[in-house]
Amino acid sequence: MSPATAPLAPSSASVIPTLPDFQAAAARLAGTAHRTPVQTSSSLDALSGATLFFKCENFQKGGAYKFRGAFNALRALPIEQSTRGVVTHSSGNHATCLTLAARLLGVPAHIVLPRNAPRIKQRAVADYGGHVTLCEPTLAARQAEASRIQAATGAAFIHPYDDSQVIAGQGTIALEMLEQVPNLEVLIAPVSGGGLLSGLCLAAKALAPHVEVWGAEPALADDAFRSLQEGRLLPNLNPATIADGLRASLSERTFGVIRQHARGIVTVSEEQILSTMRLVWERMKLVVEPSGVVPLAGLLAHAEKFRGRRVGIILTGGNVDLDRLPWQPAIDSQQRG
Amino acid sequence: MSPATAPLAPSSASVIPTLPDFQAAAARLAGTAHRTPVQTSSSLDALSGATLFFKCENFQKGGAYKFRGAFNALRALPIEQSTRGVVTHSSGNHATCLTLAARLLGVPAHIVLPRNAPRIKQRAVADYGGHVTLCEPTLAARQAEASRIQAATGAAFIHPYDDSQVIAGQGTIALEMLEQVPNLEVLIAPVSGGGLLSGLCLAAKALAPHVEVWGAEPALADDAFRSLQEGRLLPNLNPATIADGLRASLSERTFGVIRQHARGIVTVSEEQILSTMRLVWERMKLVVEPSGVVPLAGLLAHAEKFRGRRVGIILTGGNVDLDRLPWQPAIDSQQRG
Repeated sequence: MSPATAPLAPSSASVIPTLPDFQAAAARLAGTAHRTPVQTSSSLDALSGATLFFKCENFQKGGAYKFRGAFNALRALPIEQSTRGVVTHSSGNHATCLTLAARLLGVPAHIVLPRNAPRIKQRAVADYGGHVTLCEPTLAARQAEASRIQAATGAAFIHPYDDSQVIAGQGTIALEMLEQVPNLEVLIAPVSGGGLLSGLCLAAKALAPHVEVWGAEPALADDAFRSLQEGRLLPNLNPATIADGLRASLSERTFGVIRQHARGIVTVSEEQILSTMRLVWERMKLVVEPSGVVPLAGLLAHAEKFRGRRVGIILTGGNVDLDRLPWQPAIDSQQRG
Repeated sequence: MSPATAPLAPSSASVIPTLPDFQAAAARLAGTAHRTPVQTSSSLDALSGATLFFKCENFQKGGAYKFRGAFNALRALPIEQSTRGVVTHSSGNHATCLTLAARLLGVPAHIVLPRNAPRIKQRAVADYGGHVTLCEPTLAARQAEASRIQAATGAAFIHPYDDSQVIAGQGTIALEMLEQVPNLEVLIAPVSGGGLLSGLCLAAKALAPHVEVWGAEPALADDAFRSLQEGRLLPNLNPATIADGLRASLSERTFGVIRQHARGIVTVSEEQILSTMRLVWERMKLVVEPSGVVPLAGLLAHAEKFRGRRVGIILTGGNVDLDRLPWQPAIDSQQRG
């Protein structure tokens, strides 16, 4: 998804959340979102040379941290607006988590999916009671269809990341980790559209400015890395990474926050993503999706940057097609298609 | 493994652990074994009609609760005995966990494996530094080889379940759960050789006699169910269940404890094991092996027995061959072979 989608949510397009926004988001989420546990692994500590604290957002409602931003954005709407429902055209965890949030609040969720979206994702949205509309697999078609639904139903468009309340919701992870992990020194999160990473940057800056916040992304979808290097937005063009949650590109807003506050971006190869995913499943016995292991892959691939430090790692989600694991070679090409 | 192996550990063949044994085991394990977390799942509560508390022994050292019994048995040996090492002929989690315990204590572990044991199990033992001896795939050959090693090295034979210190180690799970879960009413554990189930029975009887302790086992390996019905030991004969950790049969000792103290045994089909395993991976995002989901499968298959109650479920282990998941049909026959 490119920054061209931003005009669909014009009301908040330049707002940057501050500490009260994160605290308000935490209050909205309390009792609904899980305060996910932090797990440790002595074998991964030994392997990395650092002391690692894994925030298990794979245990989050809907199986991904995206529930935080989606639920917060929906709850933050004026009541007369939220009762008309929500619409989005993400095909990933944002769509399922927004659908779940809408169901919990008893309002309709309209999800626009490209015709070629994986069946498992169509089913997940339908299972949560979302109204699925299929469209041609182009960004223009998805935007047009979402706009049509918005006009017809009065539903609010909730952007997957370029939305200040979504960013505020994702940033609550930093609030929890700072309470759960004494003397945290580093936080590493995946970066795609940048909602999570900018939320963590802003929350950590407000509460614990000494904590370094790093982004990690696939080398095949390294728009954040390149954009920071060049000092201007350089979006991904149809990135083919196995980390299907990390194919989006930064918006002007998230780029601005990350450029100002993130310590840096580390990139990883597809092979590093796969081997790290397998490592997490084998050693930690956790089901984590490819996108969710990218921060650990980045830490292992750039261990010299983090050695000897206390590092928080966000395991962002666990929604995987269990019929076809990405390291099973016979089906690898299908899964990437 | 039949009760005929008991003579290899004659010194403790009739001892039944009591509360001080469980407390001593807990003290030996403290700081080495993980005090594993208890997780909950609102969707599985809704599905079962009960309130479920999952003890995550898949996060235990070595990936299975077997570490508790193995480490406790090894630490309970007189020092002059333990320095000569340990020997066993299990091919499952007991072998890897005993090897890990021996490595942590700096003593040798000798593991006798049948030639046809899965490569992944041979590799797991070797990875932990165990000395693997391959033998013909018969119980007689395994016992003979273990006896030979015992005589040659002075290593202590540690039986996978027919050993009072192994039973005491497994029973520490009940001590932890009673502290972690207020007002627990039921405990369900898998039953194979009966070390875990008899440990839970004895510990719960001592500390919380109102807690019902249930066993769960595959219908294809239902020796506990049949033995309790008939009032005499009726061992499994080459059971073909996918739950490869549940193919052993009760010993006289574990049968005696279970007959006296367990509330009952529930059995489950292979299909119920597979669908429950998938459910746990999808909903809880936990890697749990087939044997480890049998208690939940039993609860779901016999939901009327547990409806409305607060039920502790032991997720016993997470050691799975990630190249071949049991619900992937093309490879199903291989894995059961």
